Amino acid sequence: MDYISKLNWRYATKRMNGSKIPEDKLDRILSGIQLSASSMGFQPYNIYVIESDSMKKNISQKACTQAQVLESSHLIVFSVWTEPSASQVDKFFQLISETRNQTLDSLSGFKKSVESSVLNKSKEEFTNWNARQAYIALGFGLVSAAMENVDATPMEGFNGDAMDDVLGLKAKNQKSVVLLALGYRDESKDPLSQMKKVRRPKNELFSFL
Amino acid sequence: MDYISKLNWRYATKRMNGSKIPEDKLDRILSGIQLSASSMGFQPYNIYVIESDSMKKNISQKACTQAQVLESSHLIVFSVWTEPSASQVDKFFQLISETRNQTLDSLSGFKKSVESSVLNKSKEEFTNWNARQAYIALGFGLVSAAMENVDATPMEGFNGDAMDDVLGLKAKNQKSVVLLALGYRDESKDPLSQMKKVRRPKNELFSFL
Repeated sequence: MDYISKLNWRYATKRMNGSKIPEDKLDRILSGIQLSASSMGFQPYNIYVIESDSMKKNISQKACTQAQVLESSHLIVFSVWTEPSASQVDKFFQLISETRNQTLDSLSGFKKSVESSVLNKSKEEFTNWNARQAYIALGFGLVSAAMENVDATPMEGFNGDAMDDVLGLKAKNQKSVVLLALGYRDESKDPLSQMKKVRRPKNELFSFL
Repeated sequence: MDYISKLNWRYATKRMNGSKIPEDKLDRILSGIQLSASSMGFQPYNIYVIESDSMKKNISQKACTQAQVLESSHLIVFSVWTEPSASQVDKFFQLISETRNQTLDSLSGFKKSVESSVLNKSKEEFTNWNARQAYIALGFGLVSAAMENVDATPMEGFNGDAMDDVLGLKAKNQKSVVLLALGYRDESKDPLSQMKKVRRPKNELFSFL
């Protein structure tokens, strides 16, 4: 099936049946997320992949009552960095240097521009900017899941503070911004699974100049 | 080639060679963007697909000096809605009603929840929320381009006010948030085309709970 058909097949699944995603599929979906673009390649987020029933129950009780939390195979939490720091930039350049076998000296120009972009941001600007990067990764995750014939539901409707408490994110200078439930649709319980996809027509969404 | 290989092949192309993307490929990439998920399916953005040389020159002079503006086949501008309005919600429900052959009456519960979500936001909250939705669509666009073996560069580094002037977005209660240059890499001019992809290792990016 071509990717456009897969994207037509996917929808924001409201009810899942609890079946588990095979390990190799999950691993490829996570590769898709890992390969996401981000501003300067900085990947300013951490991603929690939750399979534990007790953790899901805890989240369901305290942070997100939506059925997919308990019915998913894996619940993914995108958590962004909230505090700009020089050590994040140092670590990033260590990684570039090791991956590409380049000296840190030869990267100093690029490093200066990353530093000026990251360290001149307020905490709020940094957090919002990072959230946008996480949403690109969410997009990569959604498409990757569809490619694997795995259902996926992005969810913004949760109590962020409670989620951050459950996962201990504040102490790590992180903040949850969006969730992605992965699993398999329960067609018998989800009327949306039978409904036509609604999208604004191309001639309205796009302007050609 | 499987999609993970395609995602490994893609990179933020710095120099493009000006070649044109075949129409059918462009159309499928735009379908990918159209099929993006968005909160409640609201798609609170408009997307400008710029092929005109004079428009690209104008943008290059006033809003974004990066080489890809002129060297791309098409420059895509993601522009979000800045003003929450009841008529946007009405139009959305008209579309749902027509697509799914459901009466507006039967959708009134869902409509109320969309209204309360959209109309209770300040202009700033609405704009930021919409920007996140546009970034999901950016993710869909990036993956779709890779699937078509088309290069794509997301760009945040531009003068938003100048871009909005060039495209007349303010008068439409819109605001440009991110660009996507589509085209073909010029390997002779882009040293990055030969470099290894840098990504944080999975055991650091992901936590399994």
